[in-house]
Amino acid sequence: MRPPDSHPDSHDVRITGFASYLPRLMHDNATLPALDEPIEPADLARLGVHRRGWARDGESVGEMAVLAGRRALERAELPAGELDLVILANWTQRRYLPEFAPTVKHQLGAGRAFAHDLGCACAGFLYGLGTASEFLRNPRYRRALVIASEQTSQRARPGSRGTLILGDAAGAFVLERGPEGTRDAGRGGRLIDYELASDGEHAAIMEISDEGWVRTFIQQRELCGLAARSILEVSQRMLARNQLTLADIRWIVPHSGTAGVQAAIVRALEVAPDRILTNYRDVGNVSSASIPVALDHHVAAGTIRPGDLVLSAAVGGGWYAAAALYTVGDPPADRARA
Amino acid sequence: MRPPDSHPDSHDVRITGFASYLPRLMHDNATLPALDEPIEPADLARLGVHRRGWARDGESVGEMAVLAGRRALERAELPAGELDLVILANWTQRRYLPEFAPTVKHQLGAGRAFAHDLGCACAGFLYGLGTASEFLRNPRYRRALVIASEQTSQRARPGSRGTLILGDAAGAFVLERGPEGTRDAGRGGRLIDYELASDGEHAAIMEISDEGWVRTFIQQRELCGLAARSILEVSQRMLARNQLTLADIRWIVPHSGTAGVQAAIVRALEVAPDRILTNYRDVGNVSSASIPVALDHHVAAGTIRPGDLVLSAAVGGGWYAAAALYTVGDPPADRARA
Repeated sequence: MRPPDSHPDSHDVRITGFASYLPRLMHDNATLPALDEPIEPADLARLGVHRRGWARDGESVGEMAVLAGRRALERAELPAGELDLVILANWTQRRYLPEFAPTVKHQLGAGRAFAHDLGCACAGFLYGLGTASEFLRNPRYRRALVIASEQTSQRARPGSRGTLILGDAAGAFVLERGPEGTRDAGRGGRLIDYELASDGEHAAIMEISDEGWVRTFIQQRELCGLAARSILEVSQRMLARNQLTLADIRWIVPHSGTAGVQAAIVRALEVAPDRILTNYRDVGNVSSASIPVALDHHVAAGTIRPGDLVLSAAVGGGWYAAAALYTVGDPPADRARA
Repeated sequence: MRPPDSHPDSHDVRITGFASYLPRLMHDNATLPALDEPIEPADLARLGVHRRGWARDGESVGEMAVLAGRRALERAELPAGELDLVILANWTQRRYLPEFAPTVKHQLGAGRAFAHDLGCACAGFLYGLGTASEFLRNPRYRRALVIASEQTSQRARPGSRGTLILGDAAGAFVLERGPEGTRDAGRGGRLIDYELASDGEHAAIMEISDEGWVRTFIQQRELCGLAARSILEVSQRMLARNQLTLADIRWIVPHSGTAGVQAAIVRALEVAPDRILTNYRDVGNVSSASIPVALDHHVAAGTIRPGDLVLSAAVGGGWYAAAALYTVGDPPADRARA
């Protein structure tokens, strides 16, 4: 179906470029350092991850953010100097001071942009998208770069099964206000709507140990159920506002979480599993970077096509939930020919 | 002069309540734990702080945020359940996971609001104000709570001179979209405009040691100069957009920083020192909370009067700079009588 042009709350925000960055070192199951307790092949298969990246020299959260951001700007054919804001989602390498975003902005050459970090755990990229899209309502801001960059691998205790699942990556979207703010107003993807939710009632289910490892205090089964319910809730609220149902959505590109979360999402959303796209198998759980990383993968593979209506949703410890509804645009080269 | 009604980029955002919270334990110079090296009375006087708060039981960053936020909501006569978003600025007690804002929102009873943390060092409150005001352009969001809550005292090495300067506090603003979003459209303060800037070129001048203490790698003199230049730059850009000059501003309520920063601001802005209001003497450097805490103090003291045009500006390690232009409204009781 044709994506909705607008609803009462919407304004015209284009997604004019997106990109991802994966570390040079991608561990497959054979090269990953041994676990404290060996895992049975059947359990390993159930975890569902075959490769995951380990960031090394030149691949800090800030550096991966610059690499993904630069690629997204290239694809948008937008010089960094035309950016008005840069938002960097990251929680796996948070610091008190200084944060990463001002340096990322500086290294990209985004001279006049303001830039700040955002946490929001695995939901950070979608919180960043929502925030950036609201700044673009202000006539003085026209172009935003939203990046997620995570070193999730460092939040797993060495030797634990978490090392099989958690990986490092970065991804980015360029957003431009349209139509007068966009150089080719008629094309490019569109950020149609987004929805954010937060619930501190579930704040205590997850934390970071003093050593820096993620710890979960509820059963995986319960966590998967909560994740699926939260994703369903924000998605349905957003779809209803746009007079859409899940049947209208071509692809669902969720934050991958774990294999269990993905299975729970399939059950909760009641959609055919082949409409839910992740690249979890090849990158593991890359937290807030998972959505742009999976989108880039499936667009490059030709699965997601220009004009397809996509729903992305994520949850994050805190507790955060978020969803976004968008279309993927034509590549800039095709836009130029149009 | 009458504050400007609007400029091309502006929309109508009211400040319908503000409040602050100071810890129960306010150390004066006599009760503060002894320094490693005793300070000369003349040096102590030059530092300029007589009292500073030390947060204790029930005064975590999240708890102080709830206390300041609740007071601001009371003054706005707004039930928490009507909030659409809550932004919490904090960098002195940052956590990877979970963040504070979802819990603060839950404890306030802001059922439907989304909520997230924001860092941006000492500029976090103004970054939060700017962000919240842009969300309020979206018709589905009408009311926001922006809180800053900091345990700055914990970022000073015990026994160091930093303990004389750094204090704990929280402050909050309630923002409501006007006029149709505000219950009494004609009154209340107005957030007229804001300006944000970030410069990673200066990222390395300040950091946190492994133990958690703030360390500065440039001379205080140089830091004061940079702070003053940054504040002048964002302020002038914002004022020019509103066809105003510093001469049109009744009061300047800056992030206090240090006595040296305040002196540098006075010199850079070229305004009479008595138009620059802080309550640094009584609370120390409370980082992102300093602006709402000082505003609350000087409005309660009767210095800042309803309708006065106020400029607030802040810098923060990262490097961040921000400014906001606003008027203070009548107290709700007076508004009700109007």
